[in-house]
Amino acid sequence: MNSNVKLPVDIRIGVIGGGQLGKMLIEASRPWNIQYSVLENDLNCPAAALANHVILGGLKDAESIQKLAAECDVLTYEIEHINSRVLMELEESGKTVIPSARTLQIIQDKGLQKHFYQKHAIPTADFVICDNPAGLAEAVKSFGGDKVVVKQRMGGYDGKGVDIVTKSDIQTGLFQSPGPCVVEYFHENITEYSVIVAADQFGNVVTYPLIEMYFNPQSNLVEFLFSPAETTPDLEAECRNVAMHAVRELKSPGLFAVELFVTQSAEVLVNEIAPRPHNSGHHTIEGSYTSQFEQLNRILLGLPLGNTEMIQPSAMINLVGGEGQTGAYKLKYAEKLLSEPGVYVHLYNKSEIRPQRKMGHITVMAETLQELLDKAGKIRDWAVFE
Amino acid sequence: MNSNVKLPVDIRIGVIGGGQLGKMLIEASRPWNIQYSVLENDLNCPAAALANHVILGGLKDAESIQKLAAECDVLTYEIEHINSRVLMELEESGKTVIPSARTLQIIQDKGLQKHFYQKHAIPTADFVICDNPAGLAEAVKSFGGDKVVVKQRMGGYDGKGVDIVTKSDIQTGLFQSPGPCVVEYFHENITEYSVIVAADQFGNVVTYPLIEMYFNPQSNLVEFLFSPAETTPDLEAECRNVAMHAVRELKSPGLFAVELFVTQSAEVLVNEIAPRPHNSGHHTIEGSYTSQFEQLNRILLGLPLGNTEMIQPSAMINLVGGEGQTGAYKLKYAEKLLSEPGVYVHLYNKSEIRPQRKMGHITVMAETLQELLDKAGKIRDWAVFE
Repeated sequence: MNSNVKLPVDIRIGVIGGGQLGKMLIEASRPWNIQYSVLENDLNCPAAALANHVILGGLKDAESIQKLAAECDVLTYEIEHINSRVLMELEESGKTVIPSARTLQIIQDKGLQKHFYQKHAIPTADFVICDNPAGLAEAVKSFGGDKVVVKQRMGGYDGKGVDIVTKSDIQTGLFQSPGPCVVEYFHENITEYSVIVAADQFGNVVTYPLIEMYFNPQSNLVEFLFSPAETTPDLEAECRNVAMHAVRELKSPGLFAVELFVTQSAEVLVNEIAPRPHNSGHHTIEGSYTSQFEQLNRILLGLPLGNTEMIQPSAMINLVGGEGQTGAYKLKYAEKLLSEPGVYVHLYNKSEIRPQRKMGHITVMAETLQELLDKAGKIRDWAVFE
Repeated sequence: MNSNVKLPVDIRIGVIGGGQLGKMLIEASRPWNIQYSVLENDLNCPAAALANHVILGGLKDAESIQKLAAECDVLTYEIEHINSRVLMELEESGKTVIPSARTLQIIQDKGLQKHFYQKHAIPTADFVICDNPAGLAEAVKSFGGDKVVVKQRMGGYDGKGVDIVTKSDIQTGLFQSPGPCVVEYFHENITEYSVIVAADQFGNVVTYPLIEMYFNPQSNLVEFLFSPAETTPDLEAECRNVAMHAVRELKSPGLFAVELFVTQSAEVLVNEIAPRPHNSGHHTIEGSYTSQFEQLNRILLGLPLGNTEMIQPSAMINLVGGEGQTGAYKLKYAEKLLSEPGVYVHLYNKSEIRPQRKMGHITVMAETLQELLDKAGKIRDWAVFE
């Protein structure tokens, strides 16, 4: 099947959530003049200044989501912690929701997500589900190794709700889970990758080149990533195949980030899937022929998918609030950054800085991967606020 | 001298004119969240949906321009046919106007422009100024060749106000000039080029790679352009030097397009200068590390100039209204265009199509110039509305 949508198009898009992902989604739509409504509980949110209309309301509030749906042709979301039940009702009543409400429900619950992987032969770390936190000590007995990963089933975000814990801390009661959780086998010395996957409304699915990540060990936030990854064509192909397979099985259009672990024995495992543009895909704004945000616009509008190839090797550095930073903020080395060729500064228009808060990001482009890594390494030191 | 402006920056920019150039200027500022006010006499103008504030008023109306100035830190304009006297008054009272009011006054009057070239040894076609249209027959006597170019001193735009006329039509009275004009020697078989030149607030001036143009012989609109040009490094260097020299002599910050003629004897002549982003620079949005619109944002904000190199060879095709087309419109081959790798569609959000009206443009990128020209030639046929 194919698109027969024509530009200019008279489709209004509603986004649940008005953060930086919503902001960049609207930015990418501007050459096509798409009408955007945003639901957020803060009129100073990043997407507000760009949206054509902002509905003030909670992201879990059914009435607010219905209000958004009533004025839009297509609904999407830029955060998982929203009311998926009302999305399902809206779908039943004929509204287009992308990705589907069922997809969101699977992804919202890390227990359901793991069952989904198992059911569809999507490789993932071994796990047990522990719905009664008191039974955690018993549950970890079956795992080899000293440590396990404990993931809260609901509500995790940006590394929050995920703990790497020793089995002895669990058995002595030093670590206690606050709620139902998934316990996973802990793979030592894994490499983390991400694949952005785009699925259109007609069943076509494409992947972006593999993205390699560097995480800050303290904050567990992505600090630095680059693409193409420094790996073999075989591993690149396997990662992209696994990611594409996982998204195909969701049977929903959308723009997804599939986070992968590659173990020391070169096993590719799906860690989790985000059903939205992702921090690990921000370099595509400048580095790819079609950015993840333009791609999601194409998907939402029923247009054909864009080319996912890279124009040049690219890196992305997050601009996050430093320790003790609050209130007003300025980039300390704005002039240095803007004087460097192939460097792009994105600020998210947040009213105040906070420690670890994502305030923006920097894209770095270079003609070769080696040049890119050298440049990104230098520029990382300038990615600070004063 | 250098910039010490830091991001985020608290500078509000005012733009006189709300057309597509203003729209794309604001689009380019969105990653930095710059506040924009626009003056235009139509609330449905292309820039209105993106501006933070629209002031409804005439572009020649002193009071409206003063109102815009009162709420902004820096003023610029995206069209030449505005009130330059009030800009001069605002400058005198301490407001920053970029490019300067004096620059605009020189450029508004093709007679002054020619005197400026002559005074600063900027090569240009031989000319006489004919302020009394009745004396035109006498004025053309001194020119060699059969034809001359007659340019109205004031008000020309997009090829309007410029006529290529035979001397006999003038001498028999078949052609009459409606007002004071410049008569120029007509060079046969010239090649047309453009150079985008950026001058910051600290005296630094840089040029973009040479742009080669293909004009539609009927409408005299640019229909197709590409960069880098198909020429020798020597001619490229000479064109960029001439353009840089011309802009340096204006002694004003700003983003300029210098339109050049290269004669059959390889003489480089300045045709005219536009003191704003230009149709011939639209390919820089995707094709250059720093687009002409981001570059003007940098200049207006007092930030350092960005890298003007190209990422890949790029072409630009205008999307203009066809003969007899009025009212509502759709791109006839939107799906084909969006399925082609390295092709970008920009629509200007104009409410109605009209014959020859600029409705949008298409950027085409390719890894080599030959691939680019083949691709642009094919895509040009799809650049039509239904």
